[in-house]
Amino acid sequence: MGLNPVIEMLGRRLRLAVIGGGLGSFIGAMHRQAARLDDRYEIVTGVFSSDSEKSKQAGLELGLAPDRLYASVQEMLEAEAAREDGADVVAIMTPNDSHYQYSVAAVEHGFDVICDKPMTNTLEEAEALHKKVQETGLVFCLTHNYTGYPMVRQAKAMVDEGELGTIRLIQVEYVQGGKAEEGQDLPPELSWKYDPVRGGPSMVMGSIGTHAHNLARFITGLELAEVSADIGSIVPGRVVDDYAGALLRFENGARGTFWITQAAAGVENCLQIRVSGTKGTIEWMQEFPQTLTFMPLHGSSQNRTPNGPGTLPLSAHSSRIVAGHPEGFHEGFANIYSDAAEAISARRTGKEPNPLALHFPNSWDGLLGIRFIDSVIKSSEANGKWTKC
Amino acid sequence: MGLNPVIEMLGRRLRLAVIGGGLGSFIGAMHRQAARLDDRYEIVTGVFSSDSEKSKQAGLELGLAPDRLYASVQEMLEAEAAREDGADVVAIMTPNDSHYQYSVAAVEHGFDVICDKPMTNTLEEAEALHKKVQETGLVFCLTHNYTGYPMVRQAKAMVDEGELGTIRLIQVEYVQGGKAEEGQDLPPELSWKYDPVRGGPSMVMGSIGTHAHNLARFITGLELAEVSADIGSIVPGRVVDDYAGALLRFENGARGTFWITQAAAGVENCLQIRVSGTKGTIEWMQEFPQTLTFMPLHGSSQNRTPNGPGTLPLSAHSSRIVAGHPEGFHEGFANIYSDAAEAISARRTGKEPNPLALHFPNSWDGLLGIRFIDSVIKSSEANGKWTKC
Amino acid sequence: MGLNPVIEMLGRRLRLAVIGGGLGSFIGAMHRQAARLDDRYEIVTGVFSSDSEKSKQAGLELGLAPDRLYASVQEMLEAEAAREDGADVVAIMTPNDSHYQYSVAAVEHGFDVICDKPMTNTLEEAEALHKKVQETGLVFCLTHNYTGYPMVRQAKAMVDEGELGTIRLIQVEYVQGGKAEEGQDLPPELSWKYDPVRGGPSMVMGSIGTHAHNLARFITGLELAEVSADIGSIVPGRVVDDYAGALLRFENGARGTFWITQAAAGVENCLQIRVSGTKGTIEWMQEFPQTLTFMPLHGSSQNRTPNGPGTLPLSAHSSRIVAGHPEGFHEGFANIYSDAAEAISARRTGKEPNPLALHFPNSWDGLLGIRFIDSVIKSSEANGKWTKC
Amino acid sequence: MGLNPVIEMLGRRLRLAVIGGGLGSFIGAMHRQAARLDDRYEIVTGVFSSDSEKSKQAGLELGLAPDRLYASVQEMLEAEAAREDGADVVAIMTPNDSHYQYSVAAVEHGFDVICDKPMTNTLEEAEALHKKVQETGLVFCLTHNYTGYPMVRQAKAMVDEGELGTIRLIQVEYVQGGKAEEGQDLPPELSWKYDPVRGGPSMVMGSIGTHAHNLARFITGLELAEVSADIGSIVPGRVVDDYAGALLRFENGARGTFWITQAAAGVENCLQIRVSGTKGTIEWMQEFPQTLTFMPLHGSSQNRTPNGPGTLPLSAHSSRIVAGHPEGFHEGFANIYSDAAEAISARRTGKEPNPLALHFPNSWDGLLGIRFIDSVIKSSEANGKWTKC
Repeated sequence: MGLNPVIEMLGRRLRLAVIGGGLGSFIGAMHRQAARLDDRYEIVTGVFSSDSEKSKQAGLELGLAPDRLYASVQEMLEAEAAREDGADVVAIMTPNDSHYQYSVAAVEHGFDVICDKPMTNTLEEAEALHKKVQETGLVFCLTHNYTGYPMVRQAKAMVDEGELGTIRLIQVEYVQGGKAEEGQDLPPELSWKYDPVRGGPSMVMGSIGTHAHNLARFITGLELAEVSADIGSIVPGRVVDDYAGALLRFENGARGTFWITQAAAGVENCLQIRVSGTKGTIEWMQEFPQTLTFMPLHGSSQNRTPNGPGTLPLSAHSSRIVAGHPEGFHEGFANIYSDAAEAISARRTGKEPNPLALHFPNSWDGLLGIRFIDSVIKSSEANGKWTKC
Repeated sequence: MGLNPVIEMLGRRLRLAVIGGGLGSFIGAMHRQAARLDDRYEIVTGVFSSDSEKSKQAGLELGLAPDRLYASVQEMLEAEAAREDGADVVAIMTPNDSHYQYSVAAVEHGFDVICDKPMTNTLEEAEALHKKVQETGLVFCLTHNYTGYPMVRQAKAMVDEGELGTIRLIQVEYVQGGKAEEGQDLPPELSWKYDPVRGGPSMVMGSIGTHAHNLARFITGLELAEVSADIGSIVPGRVVDDYAGALLRFENGARGTFWITQAAAGVENCLQIRVSGTKGTIEWMQEFPQTLTFMPLHGSSQNRTPNGPGTLPLSAHSSRIVAGHPEGFHEGFANIYSDAAEAISARRTGKEPNPLALHFPNSWDGLLGIRFIDSVIKSSEANGKWTKC
Repeated sequence: MGLNPVIEMLGRRLRLAVIGGGLGSFIGAMHRQAARLDDRYEIVTGVFSSDSEKSKQAGLELGLAPDRLYASVQEMLEAEAAREDGADVVAIMTPNDSHYQYSVAAVEHGFDVICDKPMTNTLEEAEALHKKVQETGLVFCLTHNYTGYPMVRQAKAMVDEGELGTIRLIQVEYVQGGKAEEGQDLPPELSWKYDPVRGGPSMVMGSIGTHAHNLARFITGLELAEVSADIGSIVPGRVVDDYAGALLRFENGARGTFWITQAAAGVENCLQIRVSGTKGTIEWMQEFPQTLTFMPLHGSSQNRTPNGPGTLPLSAHSSRIVAGHPEGFHEGFANIYSDAAEAISARRTGKEPNPLALHFPNSWDGLLGIRFIDSVIKSSEANGKWTKC
Repeated sequence: MGLNPVIEMLGRRLRLAVIGGGLGSFIGAMHRQAARLDDRYEIVTGVFSSDSEKSKQAGLELGLAPDRLYASVQEMLEAEAAREDGADVVAIMTPNDSHYQYSVAAVEHGFDVICDKPMTNTLEEAEALHKKVQETGLVFCLTHNYTGYPMVRQAKAMVDEGELGTIRLIQVEYVQGGKAEEGQDLPPELSWKYDPVRGGPSMVMGSIGTHAHNLARFITGLELAEVSADIGSIVPGRVVDDYAGALLRFENGARGTFWITQAAAGVENCLQIRVSGTKGTIEWMQEFPQTLTFMPLHGSSQNRTPNGPGTLPLSAHSSRIVAGHPEGFHEGFANIYSDAAEAISARRTGKEPNPLALHFPNSWDGLLGIRFIDSVIKSSEANGKWTKC
């Protein structure tokens, strides 16, 4: 990464308003760090909790100006839209059931939006939100952060450049163990995940399944045609689902599998993908993100690393550092934020963004994710019948 | 491994007759090395090729006595059955379509049998052979050699001992790249694999799918209830299938996935399994067979190694060496041979074998493998419908 | 990490002045990102280049106020010391030969200091600077950033807690390939590394040797007694050294080795350490920083991960994220900055810092690093004679 | 590996007489399995213990003919030398202090010899034995078995072919934990290791140091010029040494380090080597022997595997199996035995051996190993002074 394109275009940092992500929240801190890392955003306001006192307390502890700590999201959006120096962008990191309403409200007030995944809880909401984003021309960035890792982007670029040939086989899995224990409670700020009304029709798909789905689409550039799936709950006494498996058929004829669970006792955060084309196979594991294994059809298996030999421009664009110095989850997340910042600044100034900065997930990706959840559930209910995506 | 139980029981090595595995054959050399490693067998005769001249030549090059090099399998079985010092055991390593006939002939002549997988090409043959083996009480050993690795046996023993709790989730995959190239010919001695008549109803299932299926059953001790599958050919112009995916439901309610292919360009021999129970998860990869990763529900991930801390008796029984000295494919294969030797010697002498030696795959395992192939094909033909196994 | 202790103590972020690290500089961007990540610093001014025009340009591109872009370090220190809202801390990331002068100047103007390693180019300077820091009571933080990784801190905490028993054996190595090519030029901004006057008496020791030395001391808490060393240049035509090896004797009787080079063609950034005590051995590799392997005397080898089972408080303090989400070089570097920020804020407010925040390297560590360089060179010149450290 | 060259040349297997390696012995079983794997030897006799009753019992349990079980080595050598069908080769796997006498006796009776390392306990013996071997022209094979691994031989071949360019830097280490516990007793059959009279002047050098030394020489083809060393005992109360470190200078100017210990608690059998040349670096670890990492100066890091892409003839010669099927310690050991068998058969028949079979360690390698032990001890006694090898 070179100069700061936001300062270059706007003459200042983007002003960010935050919804959700109170002080105890892991994902809230992550969003703020991601916004800060490349110095393209300044957090100017936020509603961090539905409890307005807690929200204000959080804002003060984050060093925000007291006069920009509002009692509600609605109040914040109106006040900031009215300020000369008001926020440019709204970042949403609330439980799933409010992504839709806050996104729509932000868009309606003219803000660009950065929103946590899944985009919405229903297919109807997803379609409506995508339509609204398209109509307004605003930037909508969905934080499928795993697509921000340099070696995921290297993988995508290798596929785009034809280094793998025609893609034939795709295996993607996302296995966690955090919800493996029977009767285990979640911390209060995450308890909505066990509530199908707030967390959406599928805990496991909303939490990690859309990440896996998005990762496969991002790297391969392929869209799913149909799916044969099984989804359910393996931990006794649970009302939300905790595993899903699917067989995949892509539009180009490629085949694949998809396997996700949060009930694999002892596993940390194992998101993995293997993609085979006519010219070779690549493998990537989130827990060792700085290695992309490339197994060419003829030739030794190779370990590609960030800014190592063979680095393609999209990957180089996504790394801050010389080879051998690991970047991690924060940097990948920050890449999504920083690319969105460039797109937003370009939109606001009418300037041309770096095309390499336009690979962050958007509302179309979000809509496809919700459609995929819907198809998996339908196929599972239909005894594994192949179902359109 | 301690003293030689075959010499202890019989006062001599078992006399082995070989069918198939001519001099250029990888699998033939492997069988012979496996038989030799622990000094429990002496190869005394063999029909190595359907061409009787080539067969005799091979026998001479292997140092066999000229008067025990026969013109046909039939002649060998009769002559050896009639000799005072005739063979005890017949090992079969021919193309799939002759496993049934040679196994039946060997059993009918009173020989114990060691046979390559898959057991037969049809379900009818598998049922008939299993019935015949049961009726005769002879030993029938199927060389699902991957179950011979010390850490696979450690995994099985950990499940048996309850170290994983109740098994919930099983992922097994076997990915190879050897048949990824379009238009690629096989060496002549393997060309039968591309011939559905000789290789059986499914190349990929017969070659590697039954290994993956057997491995999952061996480690977990669970039987499959039903399967939802997709099988086909991804490499253009191929008449045999080269990938299969399946979602799995086990009799105890556990869920899982199964993914196999021989068309993943650049991949060598990636057989992997992950099994999660209520108390933890284990992972094993054939390409690094000396490590079994154990992730307990509470506690750090552990690397279990052969004869390292926590080694259970079945694993210790299956390793010849102190910790840190890798054993490989040969030793795993030899474990199958050596355990079968102990069972055969016990049967022939009426003595008690070591119970740890009785974990080699048998005709029941072979029959279930063929049933699994059948179920996968039927489910795939029925649009992914869940199908009994 | 919880609330922002700097805002808690000071009611605002620390104001940071930067010396060096112009726009093309890798290390400059790293320092700024490290300062920014946890929101404890605001960069308010800087002299980024000895060319005052370039320096101002850089400041503008970083979004700094034009009236705080000075023509020289001297001018900056004076002006900022005089301002009501002047900088609190000076961060120095210039070539090695100016660390001493800028550090002394900063300290003399009353600033706390964060300085890149090695602390100085001569032992005399190191002793003088350390003495001055001690006299003033200011905070001096040396960016041996590798000690900021969560699993390095876990290693230190495990040693401190006695989990390894008495330390006996230490192997540390730092192997890079970036300077393996004969006749290869460095980019202009790094060309001082090949100049013994600017880069110091030993390129390889100054660049990476002090990191390895510091890492071993940090984790084990042991001090070196004496060293037997060999240092030189293996790439023909080079006037600075590019490898050094040493045998180590620690004050408690532990033994070890030290091996560093920048001439190992193809290697990226391989800093590794293995420490054995009476109760077990730990291994850590910078290129896979989120794993700390712990091999207990009795028990399976374990993979410790950030915030995974067994995490000790110092490691938990040093990680922002739940287990399975890799942190990297930036986060480790940021930990050094953030801990220094806490110490500085506590000093300025007379409050008690969190004791876990006091593990950043300081001027004593810097002095010992320079002494180590001196001892290695002396031993090597004395034909490997054991030499005091 | 193709046809059996011993049967091709001799018309039969080599007849092997064994000295040492009684039934409880790990190394005895290993030698016998290594001899058996490729069917080039038939064990015909042996003296397995200095207790003649135990020795005979062992012979019977190994299935040897009672009339070839002798009361002493002397008797065996005489009787077998006199038989028409007597042994061809003597394999020695006794404690170190008898290697010399048995080797000399075997050679004097005209037997080819396979002997465990270290070759002798004193430099005088080593020189005398090497001289005697040279004078007789018999084959003397020293079982530095690690040089038999396919990827070690691939490494050697890559160096020989110039794929690494000029070798500059060599790091070799051999770290074990089996002797880390204070006051820990060895099993009776290994207790001689703690006895300097029987085990030789250095336990750690004789047990593992000569392996590491030989491995570095084998792969690089370079000879050591001088060494600066430190050797001693780190476990309290021990009379034999358990660690040694050395800095290395090779005849071509290359530099390196050597570090060995048996006191690293919890480590299994970590023999590792890294070799850097002008064109790249290779790394190999014994615990994962099927991977050779090659990091070219320009280009991605590669994982070379047995019979994978880029396999050179010496490596292909040393593997029995297609890529992806791990071979281990036994197969490496067997390669030494099998190559020696080919050399012995060629000598006895006056035929030409395959030149690829002539890379097993011999008495010259053995002599250099003993010289290296001597130099390490002398340098350590001389306060680290550089000492000729």
